[in-house]
Amino acid sequence: MSYVYNRLNKDDVALLMVDHQSGLLSLVRDFSPDDFKNNVLALADIAKFFDIPTILTTSFEDGPNGPMVPELKAAFPDAPYFARPGQINAWDNEEFVAAVKATGKKQLLIAGVVTEVCVAFPVLSALEEGYEVFVVTDASGTFNQTTRDAAWDRMSQAGAQLMTWFAVGGELHRDWRNDIEGFGGLLAGHLPAYANLIQSYEQQSLAHKR
Amino acid sequence: MSYVYNRLNKDDVALLMVDHQSGLLSLVRDFSPDDFKNNVLALADIAKFFDIPTILTTSFEDGPNGPMVPELKAAFPDAPYFARPGQINAWDNEEFVAAVKATGKKQLLIAGVVTEVCVAFPVLSALEEGYEVFVVTDASGTFNQTTRDAAWDRMSQAGAQLMTWFAVGGELHRDWRNDIEGFGGLLAGHLPAYANLIQSYEQQSLAHKR
Amino acid sequence: MSYVYNRLNKDDVALLMVDHQSGLLSLVRDFSPDDFKNNVLALADIAKFFDIPTILTTSFEDGPNGPMVPELKAAFPDAPYFARPGQINAWDNEEFVAAVKATGKKQLLIAGVVTEVCVAFPVLSALEEGYEVFVVTDASGTFNQTTRDAAWDRMSQAGAQLMTWFAVGGELHRDWRNDIEGFGGLLAGHLPAYANLIQSYEQQSLAHKR
Amino acid sequence: MSYVYNRLNKDDVALLMVDHQSGLLSLVRDFSPDDFKNNVLALADIAKFFDIPTILTTSFEDGPNGPMVPELKAAFPDAPYFARPGQINAWDNEEFVAAVKATGKKQLLIAGVVTEVCVAFPVLSALEEGYEVFVVTDASGTFNQTTRDAAWDRMSQAGAQLMTWFAVGGELHRDWRNDIEGFGGLLAGHLPAYANLIQSYEQQSLAHKR
Amino acid sequence: MSYVYNRLNKDDVALLMVDHQSGLLSLVRDFSPDDFKNNVLALADIAKFFDIPTILTTSFEDGPNGPMVPELKAAFPDAPYFARPGQINAWDNEEFVAAVKATGKKQLLIAGVVTEVCVAFPVLSALEEGYEVFVVTDASGTFNQTTRDAAWDRMSQAGAQLMTWFAVGGELHRDWRNDIEGFGGLLAGHLPAYANLIQSYEQQSLAHKR
Amino acid sequence: MSYVYNRLNKDDVALLMVDHQSGLLSLVRDFSPDDFKNNVLALADIAKFFDIPTILTTSFEDGPNGPMVPELKAAFPDAPYFARPGQINAWDNEEFVAAVKATGKKQLLIAGVVTEVCVAFPVLSALEEGYEVFVVTDASGTFNQTTRDAAWDRMSQAGAQLMTWFAVGGELHRDWRNDIEGFGGLLAGHLPAYANLIQSYEQQSLAHKR
Amino acid sequence: MSYVYNRLNKDDVALLMVDHQSGLLSLVRDFSPDDFKNNVLALADIAKFFDIPTILTTSFEDGPNGPMVPELKAAFPDAPYFARPGQINAWDNEEFVAAVKATGKKQLLIAGVVTEVCVAFPVLSALEEGYEVFVVTDASGTFNQTTRDAAWDRMSQAGAQLMTWFAVGGELHRDWRNDIEGFGGLLAGHLPAYANLIQSYEQQSLAHKR
Amino acid sequence: MSYVYNRLNKDDVALLMVDHQSGLLSLVRDFSPDDFKNNVLALADIAKFFDIPTILTTSFEDGPNGPMVPELKAAFPDAPYFARPGQINAWDNEEFVAAVKATGKKQLLIAGVVTEVCVAFPVLSALEEGYEVFVVTDASGTFNQTTRDAAWDRMSQAGAQLMTWFAVGGELHRDWRNDIEGFGGLLAGHLPAYANLIQSYEQQSLAHKR
Repeated sequence: MSYVYNRLNKDDVALLMVDHQSGLLSLVRDFSPDDFKNNVLALADIAKFFDIPTILTTSFEDGPNGPMVPELKAAFPDAPYFARPGQINAWDNEEFVAAVKATGKKQLLIAGVVTEVCVAFPVLSALEEGYEVFVVTDASGTFNQTTRDAAWDRMSQAGAQLMTWFAVGGELHRDWRNDIEGFGGLLAGHLPAYANLIQSYEQQSLAHKR
Repeated sequence: MSYVYNRLNKDDVALLMVDHQSGLLSLVRDFSPDDFKNNVLALADIAKFFDIPTILTTSFEDGPNGPMVPELKAAFPDAPYFARPGQINAWDNEEFVAAVKATGKKQLLIAGVVTEVCVAFPVLSALEEGYEVFVVTDASGTFNQTTRDAAWDRMSQAGAQLMTWFAVGGELHRDWRNDIEGFGGLLAGHLPAYANLIQSYEQQSLAHKR
Repeated sequence: MSYVYNRLNKDDVALLMVDHQSGLLSLVRDFSPDDFKNNVLALADIAKFFDIPTILTTSFEDGPNGPMVPELKAAFPDAPYFARPGQINAWDNEEFVAAVKATGKKQLLIAGVVTEVCVAFPVLSALEEGYEVFVVTDASGTFNQTTRDAAWDRMSQAGAQLMTWFAVGGELHRDWRNDIEGFGGLLAGHLPAYANLIQSYEQQSLAHKR
Repeated sequence: MSYVYNRLNKDDVALLMVDHQSGLLSLVRDFSPDDFKNNVLALADIAKFFDIPTILTTSFEDGPNGPMVPELKAAFPDAPYFARPGQINAWDNEEFVAAVKATGKKQLLIAGVVTEVCVAFPVLSALEEGYEVFVVTDASGTFNQTTRDAAWDRMSQAGAQLMTWFAVGGELHRDWRNDIEGFGGLLAGHLPAYANLIQSYEQQSLAHKR
Repeated sequence: MSYVYNRLNKDDVALLMVDHQSGLLSLVRDFSPDDFKNNVLALADIAKFFDIPTILTTSFEDGPNGPMVPELKAAFPDAPYFARPGQINAWDNEEFVAAVKATGKKQLLIAGVVTEVCVAFPVLSALEEGYEVFVVTDASGTFNQTTRDAAWDRMSQAGAQLMTWFAVGGELHRDWRNDIEGFGGLLAGHLPAYANLIQSYEQQSLAHKR
Repeated sequence: MSYVYNRLNKDDVALLMVDHQSGLLSLVRDFSPDDFKNNVLALADIAKFFDIPTILTTSFEDGPNGPMVPELKAAFPDAPYFARPGQINAWDNEEFVAAVKATGKKQLLIAGVVTEVCVAFPVLSALEEGYEVFVVTDASGTFNQTTRDAAWDRMSQAGAQLMTWFAVGGELHRDWRNDIEGFGGLLAGHLPAYANLIQSYEQQSLAHKR
Repeated sequence: MSYVYNRLNKDDVALLMVDHQSGLLSLVRDFSPDDFKNNVLALADIAKFFDIPTILTTSFEDGPNGPMVPELKAAFPDAPYFARPGQINAWDNEEFVAAVKATGKKQLLIAGVVTEVCVAFPVLSALEEGYEVFVVTDASGTFNQTTRDAAWDRMSQAGAQLMTWFAVGGELHRDWRNDIEGFGGLLAGHLPAYANLIQSYEQQSLAHKR
Repeated sequence: MSYVYNRLNKDDVALLMVDHQSGLLSLVRDFSPDDFKNNVLALADIAKFFDIPTILTTSFEDGPNGPMVPELKAAFPDAPYFARPGQINAWDNEEFVAAVKATGKKQLLIAGVVTEVCVAFPVLSALEEGYEVFVVTDASGTFNQTTRDAAWDRMSQAGAQLMTWFAVGGELHRDWRNDIEGFGGLLAGHLPAYANLIQSYEQQSLAHKR
């Protein structure tokens, strides 16, 4: 049985951001807060850079779960946004699923908080409906490493592919020549170690120009 | 071959609690004692909350393995309870299997101590008999991380799904509106970080009412 | 210069609980939430068991820092309680210091959130005023292990002694015969691994009585 | 496609101990030396307890790799023993394979040093020949955790089952009543935490007899 | 010999930022890049917030060590800045020391890359000259945890105090009432977990106003 | 469905070294720099030892990514070398793929930086084209352990085999007698712990000769 | 103030083994059970090898704490043994202290379970009475790493020296020539990695003799 | 009491390399073998670069401990070399001490295997005799992290300063201008991450020259 590599394709993919809310983020302890914030915003920047249709949803945002992270709201001012009245699996919300289907895409990037519930449930539902599902693992957080390991295993065994925001960006961009400065700027903004390389390089270039 | 997402369904599921005994618990070192106690009792509360038929079993409880954790006994006073006379795999105990079958359920949640024996053996037996098996990984403990990793891999490759008590609760509850206060109370009791969110929220609500 | 071992003495000691508030607790990541909650409540139970004068204080409890953990309030209904209007170092609050002095004790147990600020600052202030200071390290939490290491070093080098709630209990109790059941019950309630030992022991005793 | 649980069966299984040599053991760093020594000897004791045909092999034992661990030699004085003249994969040694086949068993327990070579290669060869292969992961050691993770994944994906010596013992014994004292003694000798339980239990029994 | 708590005092303190250069930052592996970047910039913001005289220095910035992090340069456009021609210990650079002395401060905050050299050497030199020295440990990075542990021990034993940027901010601010919004904003910008608390709080306030 | 063990065969295999560049290496933090350098050079030595056709490629080597590690260039002076003008997935570079095909090999060893992009993408592309793909995991590096775990899972689930340089060497060599001194020297040069064994052995041999 | 190195001297030292009881050992989680058992028995063997006066004590050995580890009892059949009726600090037991004083030694080796109570309390008491105190840290166990760190800091700051059984053995033995075989045998029995070296060496010696 | 910073001074310092033998190195597990080998050789290169008098010693090098690492012997062909006939503490060997004294230096760099014995004992002896002692912690190895922590604490509390080879190099060199190329080459040879920076820099310089 031969393997087919259906790459992430910017024309075929939609992004679902599930329950990145200020209260729920307090529960995430498998990443440092700085790392996790950076990962989530990097994914958002990627979606904007590639014009990926993005759908936002929250759970009980008027209660302890808190509002969606304001940077996300600001990043996607016109995106479909569903404050779910109670469904734990976002896929149980008909408007949400309708919006996903309305994108007409076959590939779904899914990230959220917490991984084993808010991510895993819609991941499994989407797999059942025949979508190719890519979990953005580092923009998805949960209580601890043990919980994460179990959640990753369940999703992977069901057929989801485990990725990270940087891999998503690289697979979508395909070729640096499509936009060197834009993509480089995106990376520099979210990978301090890469920004360091760029700075060293640019200073030296400047020095030689002088 | 398409994936089918058979969700945990409160009408289709039974819970098997295997060998959570005071002596055997002394052997568990892949969780801190506080974390593990909390996980086991959280799973018990979930079973009670959703009225999941629950079956308890112990191994040699009159010897060094010690008695079942009293909180579990107290939580399920009327549950079938099998003090196995010697079978290591609970599934080798005919009364136990009969009780499982008597529930008429197709989905089994299994947790126990130690993971690679008391959990893995009945998990594999149940898979062979066609049950859908969900391992509650964080209510199952063993000697160390290496042992756990091997046990998880064996069960996962055989077709069991790796879950945690929180994921089980969320998948069973489906929609917060089914019982907001009840489910919220359950979570607050077992997730101190979530309880903190609730407290902050409620104090502020009170303040505004004043 | 000879060393003098001034043991914790239940007649000489007061306990200061600083800023255990629902919001601030969300920041604690050098303990699992279950472990930390248990440690804080264990320390409270010790203070009650030995009738240690206890002083509570919070910082900005009407804002994002949130209210004091309700279990602590409930444990010490009559304790002096100071909602500080802005002082970061509790020792800068005159009423708080007056209450400490009013206890007439020379030994101070201090715990709080976060370790390097809410604990370390009053620890250093109290040392300067000549108190013997004992940091209850495991009932004090902060952002990560690195921060904790730095905070512990600063306090230790200044002369504070680093303890844990269990060591505090043992040093205060001195002799099990002072109250075997009471102290045993306290331990069993906060050390699941010790509770397991007791259960195994008691079941066997019962068996032999039968 | 239904899962079949072919349990380890003491009448169907042989044990292959590959390259547990004093020099090679110096390379093992994914276990502490105490833990690893205990695991290897525990596996040997299990093989003897259940009379499992055991085959020993070494690689270049007259050079830096060093002699087979003397406790293993002593444990299996009459076992087939193959000092391989050069083959890295023991399965490339015809006498070794002949000895395996001569046992007439269908299930193979394999352990060795180092995991990704001396264990993985014969594991994959044996799988190809249709054996059911069970890797005794904690009696197999290698350079570090990363190497181990890669080796486990390769073997598991090929169809080998990852076990540990304790799981092997439990799956073979089936029922404590087959030999309570013998099996209990085996465990006590290799699980200090279990030995502790037994001692507490026995002292109390003695006390009551008095 | 009684302990004196000389607190950090915004009128008595200067900040030395040593060798935070793009090349050298590539060597830092005791923090994640996101965490470290955040820590360094948080310290810079604290210095600006409290108007702390700040001195910048670099080592061989035209070679592989690379230029100073541009955000630091931008934060302190008028600060004394010394591109050292070769001295490894910044304290061996006379202009640097003159600038430190010109501040007239007795307390020095020191951070840099790498900890055991660029931080430890000037820390020890400044201690010798009678300064009170506070190492900002989390804005100082090095090759690995072992190196850090050794460097911290050497500096602590010599009399330096180990702090973190958050503790520095708290000790300088003293009382929230000095500037609630300003200090809160500073924290929110560098502590995502604290920003979450603020967002939850503010949304709820808004909701009640409506 | 029976498993077939297609071993690495020195006549059937080619090695692809992807983007081991001085800048990108600064991003690798799932290995210590010493360990990673050693792993990469060990893999190179293996390729030379077994005369494996090797193909080198870099990405944007004139910019911040930096030049290929000079030791690699020196090791393979005549190897096909492709400085890709922009393609992120090396398999999107036609000359690179042509060179791979020109080797006429069916088995590909792939290593590179960073794992989830520069390794995973060509791994998946090569699998799709029917190659047997072996990832040399310890000569492939990335940002952190989480990213690595996700990348490994994706490649493994697609059918790639996870190996390490030592396992590659052993599987290719087959039998020590093919070249004892050569292979031993290779190992001694890259496994200090093995070199220690050899030294102890040789000194003792010398002693006995005297 | 000049440092004086008062080495451990076999004629000046006594060993106190405090509360190594089967129940309490279940609480130890800062070592693996294999490692801890080995460390405790190694210390016992050292005491016997050097004829160090040894004093044993237990706490409530008829209750859940359980009996002293039988190997210890067997190792020191004639040693003073005090089953304390209730004192938590062994130094509060007059017979125990009398026995310590009766040894006439000035140096005390102390090990026990748990570190921060059963070890730290008598350590501090003995320091106060002018003894030189050496904590055998790896034969002393407790609940977790955090607790251990705090306990070590408290004892070290009070003047106790932190050692391990191997360092104790080396400092007492002084010169291998005092008994090469005896000391080598002791090490081989408790350091599997050292035993491996010896085996490789001896086999080669044998080979050359032949 | 004011602190005096007696820096390492190349004219005042001698280096003692204690028991870096092939057998004993097999016991070191607090560093990866690659890292440790690199650290030891880096220290040797520093001693040669600064012409530091160096003294080598071994313990029982004809037995299982094995010969001194050949690279060390080669690095210091004319250094005093003492194969101790039995003294565990090198300072108990009169010739060794005489050689140390003959250097006429007041500062001693000490490194060795294992840390708590072969390093700590001569460190404490040298401190007693009034030497300033600097432990090169990362060129000193032992069984595990716990042992190391205890050994470091004992030496640090006695007055030794904990350093690493890189800090030693920087403190000795003082100013890059003393020999930029030489010192840069030394670092590049032992810090792969620094070598990467240099390569990126040099390639860019070359590019601009073209």
